[in-house]
Parts: sequence; C-alpha cells; structure tokens
Amino acid sequence: MAGEEKPVGIAVLGLGNVGSEVVRIIEESAEDLAARIGAPLVLRGVGVRRVADDRGVPVELLTEDIEGLVAREDVDIVVEVMGPVEPARKAILTALERGKSVITANKALMAQSTGELAQAAEKARVDLYFEAAVAGAIPVIRPLTQSLAGDTVVRVAGIVNGTTNYILSAMNETGASYDSALADASALGYAEADPTADVEGYDAAAKAAILASIAFHTRVTADDVYREGITKVTAEDFESAKALGCTIKLLAICERLTTGKGKQKVSARVYPALVPLDHPLASVSGAFNAVVVEAEAAGRLMFYGQGAGGAPTASAVMGDLVMAARNRVQGGRGPRESKYAKLPIASIGVIPTRYYVSLYVKDRPGVLSSVAAEFAKREVSIAEVRQEGIADDGGQRVGARIAVLTHQATDEALSETISALEELDAVSQVASVLRMEGAGE
Amino acid sequence: MAGEEKPVGIAVLGLGNVGSEVVRIIEESAEDLAARIGAPLVLRGVGVRRVADDRGVPVELLTEDIEGLVAREDVDIVVEVMGPVEPARKAILTALERGKSVITANKALMAQSTGELAQAAEKARVDLYFEAAVAGAIPVIRPLTQSLAGDTVVRVAGIVNGTTNYILSAMNETGASYDSALADASALGYAEADPTADVEGYDAAAKAAILASIAFHTRVTADDVYREGITKVTAEDFESAKALGCTIKLLAICERLTTGKGKQKVSARVYPALVPLDHPLASVSGAFNAVVVEAEAAGRLMFYGQGAGGAPTASAVMGDLVMAARNRVQGGRGPRESKYAKLPIASIGVIPTRYYVSLYVKDRPGVLSSVAAEFAKREVSIAEVRQEGIADDGGQRVGARIAVLTHQATDEALSETISALEELDAVSQVASVLRMEGAGE
Repeated sequence: MAGEEKPVGIAVLGLGNVGSEVVRIIEESAEDLAARIGAPLVLRGVGVRRVADDRGVPVELLTEDIEGLVAREDVDIVVEVMGPVEPARKAILTALERGKSVITANKALMAQSTGELAQAAEKARVDLYFEAAVAGAIPVIRPLTQSLAGDTVVRVAGIVNGTTNYILSAMNETGASYDSALADASALGYAEADPTADVEGYDAAAKAAILASIAFHTRVTADDVYREGITKVTAEDFESAKALGCTIKLLAICERLTTGKGKQKVSARVYPALVPLDHPLASVSGAFNAVVVEAEAAGRLMFYGQGAGGAPTASAVMGDLVMAARNRVQGGRGPRESKYAKLPIASIGVIPTRYYVSLYVKDRPGVLSSVAAEFAKREVSIAEVRQEGIADDGGQRVGARIAVLTHQATDEALSETISALEELDAVSQVASVLRMEGAGE
Repeated sequence: MAGEEKPVGIAVLGLGNVGSEVVRIIEESAEDLAARIGAPLVLRGVGVRRVADDRGVPVELLTEDIEGLVAREDVDIVVEVMGPVEPARKAILTALERGKSVITANKALMAQSTGELAQAAEKARVDLYFEAAVAGAIPVIRPLTQSLAGDTVVRVAGIVNGTTNYILSAMNETGASYDSALADASALGYAEADPTADVEGYDAAAKAAILASIAFHTRVTADDVYREGITKVTAEDFESAKALGCTIKLLAICERLTTGKGKQKVSARVYPALVPLDHPLASVSGAFNAVVVEAEAAGRLMFYGQGAGGAPTASAVMGDLVMAARNRVQGGRGPRESKYAKLPIASIGVIPTRYYVSLYVKDRPGVLSSVAAEFAKREVSIAEVRQEGIADDGGQRVGARIAVLTHQATDEALSETISALEELDAVSQVASVLRMEGAGE
C-alpha cells in the first residue's frame, strides 16, 4: 500500500496519570503499534501547563503553547487528556478545523459540547473518538455505536463512578456512616480533596449524558440529566436495603420511553437506588464500573472492568488512537451517525420507579392507617410495609418507624405523597426516600 | 454527501433462526437503519436450500442459486448465516472476489479459513466482519480488534458454549448426572439431537481459535486448540468442586506465553475446569456466555450476555451490517491488521495449571504416603489433600478416597504422575482429573 511508511504524528495534551501512560505506551510498544497501524506513531509534542525537566518526557517535546502544538503541520492526531472543559474545547476545535483527528477522555466536555464537536469533525471529515470518557477501560462507546448499530437499545444502566461505588461498597460491607466511608476513601486516594463532582453525581451525570446520546442517537447534555448524589445515604438505609435483599448503588440510567401518544422520549438520570442482590450490578464493588445494556434483539449485555485510573483509561485512549491512525494510513474514517434524532427529554416527574420510604412516627393508634391513606390517595400502590417500635435508653417505647416499599409510581405522585406525609401530625420525620431499580414492577 | 440516496443491496444466505431475524430487522427497522447508514438497505435476495412459499419471505426473493445471488451486480454486501463450512466458504470467496463486503456468523469456517478469507478481503479492499461467530450478541470481536488495539492482551478466558453451560449449571444446581442433565437439555431444546459438537468442545474450540487469532494478532485454527469435552464430568466432581468452594465450567482459554528464551507462544485450549465461586465466570449460568479479557493496561474486563439464539445472533450480524453499509456509503473500510504475527502454538504439555485429582485407594497403611510420593517425584506440589473412608452397605470400611489439589504444574508432569498412580498397587482407580482455573497459583 502506498504511503504506509509515512509516520503518523501525535500531539498529546496533558501529562497527568493518563497522559504519562499514553506517552509510555507509544514509546514502549512502538513496534507492535506500527505493525497494527501500518506506519509508525511519532510523538511530536506534549502540551503541559508548565514545562519542566522532571516530567519523564524529553523537555524538548514539552510545550505550554497548546494552540501552536495542535496546529502543527506534522501533527495528524491530537490526544486530549488534560481536562477540564476549557482550554480543551478550544484546542480540540482548532485541531478539528485543521483536519486533525481527535481522541479525548474529557467527559465534562463531551457531555456539554458533543454536538458542536461532532459537527466540526464531520465538516473536516476526520475522526473524533471518546471511548475513555465513559467507564475508563471498559469498551462501552464502541459496542453502543457499532456492535449494536443494527439493534434498538431500550435501556442503559450503569455504575460509572468508582469513587461513589467505593464509598457505597464500604458502607455496605462495614456498616460505616457516609462521612466515615468518605474519609477512608479520601485517605486511600479513592476520593479527591474536593469530592463534590463525584459524590453529588456530576461526574456520573456527564457520563449518563454521553451514554444516552449514543445509545439513542440523539443529543443529551449533562444539564438534561436528573441528578441526586450519595451524600444523604445513611448507614440505616443500608440496613433497610439488607432487610429487603438489596444493596445501594449510584446508578446512571438512560431509557427510551414511549408516551401515551406513541411519541418517543429519552430519560437520563443519576441517583442512589436499592438494587436486588441477584442483579448483575449488585456485585460490582469497590472502584469497579459496569454497564448493563438492554437491546431489543441482543437482550441484556453487561460490560465490566476498571472505570478509572491512569493505565485503564490510557488503554481506552490507545484503542481509539490506533483506530484513528489506521484510518489515516489506510484511508477512510470511523463510523458516525448520518442523522441524529432530536428526542425530547422526559422530566423526572413522569418516570415510574419503585420507592422505599422510611418514616419516624408517633406511637399511637391509627398512624399506619393514616400513612397508608396518603399513598392510596395518589394511587401509589404499596408492595410491602413494616412497622417497628422505637424505645429510649430506659426501654420506654417513644415512637415507631414505618418502612414502605411501593410498586412502580411516578416521581410526581411519590413527591406529593411525601409532602403530604410531612404535613401529618403523626409523622415526626420522613427519614429517607430511595428508589429501587432492577426488581420488576 | 454525494450518493447518499443510492441504496445498499443486501443478499442473505440462509433463512434459519438467524437469517429470518436479520430479514425481519432489515424490513421492520428500515427507516432507522437508513438514518444510521445514510442510505436505505435493500434486500436483493435470500439464498435457501429449497425455495418454498411458506418461508415468511416473498417467494420471488428466494433462490437456490447461491453463487448467482452473491455475484449479482446490485448486491453490495453478503450476509452469510447458513453454515456449515461448505458451500459457505465458496460463496464468501466469490463475494469477496467480486468486491462485496461480507458478514458471517460461521464460526467453523472462520476458525478454519480466517487467513484465506482475510487475504481475499484485503485484496478486494472490502470488509469481512464476523462478530456473530463468537458469543452471539456479546460484542467481543470488536472490543478485541478495536478497543484494545493499543493495549496488549495477555489472556482471554470465556464460557462460549451455551449448551454445555446449561448442562453444567443444571448438574451444579440439581446434583444430576451428566446423562440426565443432557437428556433434560435435549428435551428443552438447549441441546441438539446430535450434541457432539457442543459436548465434546468442538464448538468452543472453534471460538477459542477465533479469539486467540484476534487477541494475539496471529493465526490460530481449530486444529491448534487443545480440546476436552464435558462428557466425563460426574456428579461426584461437582460435590468435590463444592467442597473446594468451586463450580465446574467448560472454559475456552487463550494465553500469550513467554518461554524461557523470551520467545512468544500462544496457547489455546478448551476443557472443563474448577472455577472458584468468587470468580466472575462462576456466576454465569444457564445458556449465557461471558468472556473475560485481561490486558496489560486495561486490567480485567468482562463481557456478558446471550451467546446464542436467533435474535441475539442477529443483533451482532446487524451491527456488522450497519458498519459495512456505512463504509460503503461514506467511503472507507473497517480496521484490519497490517501485519499478522506468526506465533507458534504452545503444546498442552508445557501449560501450567492447578489440578484436582481424585483417587480410590485400598484402605491400608502407607497409601497416602506412596500417593504423595508420586506427586513429589515429578515436582508437582500439593496444596490440599483430603482422605475419607468408604464403607459398604453394611458399614464395613472397604477403601478410601483421596482428593488432591495441586499448585501449578505442567500438563506433562501431571500426566506422568497420573500414569504412575495408576500403576500403584494401592490405587484402585483414578476417578477424575480436573484442572482449576482462576484461583492463583
């Protein structure tokens, strides 16, 4: 084949855990990669915030001039692993406009600007790959865009944030409180100094937006994703979960819904939920990630592996890089959508799920009946209910706790029920409200 | 884009469960597929063994002239779902030579002729996809060839045959004998009238050959795969497995080995093995399939789903078909290797695994010591040993059973040990020899 020997020039933006690992693999696996691609990869430069001679990369390859680097004539492919949204977005747009293919691991950017970037790639007829933006090393984007391209995906549900899964797994195993599990996770390096993006579900919401966009061939941004974090999950919630044969996981859920009039909508949401122990996601523990995809013909598929970390994320980046480089050498481009649907986003209010509600009530006759009545008024059907007395230190009964598991109900009906329960004189406190996923209706 | 409206002509060879489902999806999802591809798919004809008007497809689309159909000018892509090796091989070669892209689900063919077919596709510069040939709906081929293209795969281990997994799961759950579990599987349609290809491991060996070829960028055929079936697995083996905290699975294992002199070899093998209950493959039950991939950077990944059946297999075929059609419409081809390695195949004799050996012995002093000595002589290190007495109906002790679990040993050393044990006067019978996988060394 003509031109096979012409090297493919690579610019890497960012030299953190992932960038360092990408540079290492490009150097150490040079021969294997050249055989797979049909031409050698050559590292033209690495964009960093501050050039220094202790970065493990020859200092002459380092530059602080990101825009200059991506515009270089001898750069064919740009690997963006620096985050955050800016200046990554600007650098990627420059690269695409100049006809470079782009690989990015930037989930926040892809969740926000996927339409803009995809259009720029389309216009320049180059590749834009982002496998590493969701679930680290686990191939999820490529199976959804390619392997299932002839099928109809109906649902994607995943554990896509390792920090929160680590915290929730620890709470489940040790009975620890949220604060104590978070402190342990921080001490062990599983949670960042400011854990907000993880524990409030922003990271998972960005990934949910990307998953929903590619699973349903539409545009969903992080702002479209309903989001609840894990900061309110208590040790007591885990006790309740166990009593119900469940654990608690932070789930990212993307669904295609058909409304009464046959219209298609998309729901994307992130929240902690009770998951039955026999569900495949229940046994995904620690910092691991897993994504379950349900498609009409394929049935239920699960993908499992390490969702973060320098080496696993670099593996996903390198897969994309080899694909983009092969396309450069052999001609052609990776597959892309010809037409995107513009499916409307379903509001959380109309989404039906099952709920677990735990209440502290006064210990007097008729309380259970008046609580049950509030559910019934809003047609929220009760599947299970437990009531237990609460005693003070002297053994004196001072109140009771009522735990209710509902059948499927809309978020709207459930929210109204909770508001009404909070108004009841007999109810001291609504202690927790948790959704349940993966347990039938 | 120019030419977007020109339809892509499809020929389907075979109208069994998979072929019927492929035809159904092409017809029923025509609009969605056209949007994803950028042009409509048009079914030009379906090759069948015997044309009849009760096949659910307009009779004018049916033809018995397979060679004529694949050579038609208006056919761009051929979907081969008829099996067996011939006449499929000839039809695919004709199609490739005439510049058609080919999708096939034919594992026996791909395990035998992958080199020949890949060369023909390369020469004609067209796509040859075969995701459906391994593990049905589960995307395995594409993750290995694309997502992990920049990583180094060290091991692939999978449950890739649903029939044997169904039988072994039933034996595990009910304590049934092999014959009784096979009879049930046949009655329920999970095993074919002649189950040889499944229960003797031929089907799994074909898949192992394909997996090894793509994981290690080399050529492995079904004949290169060491193979043992499940017909000798007994109810007693499952009891022993339980005592060891294991179950028994038919595994297809592909490994990259580095010999003493730093030379790379490939091992591909299929056999029933003890698998610890906490290993991800242990909980894959019934007709499901799962493949665990271990790569240097990515770590351990698992893919799980339905490995067979008309609809799941059709999902994989359709994914390939949409990719090949997009390439036709948008220009370009799917990725392929530039250079294949020719790694030698490691003989089973040099492969180290752990072993479980169960013996019936005479009940007399010194037996355990002489048995242990045979292991020691060949440097097979014993990890665990149990001895229990065996009584006759009257409670009279008539012998003993010794169960030995070894550390890692080569097949060769273990085979020699077994031969020596069989010669021992004190050993009445070597009842079973099973490998153990996934439990460390």
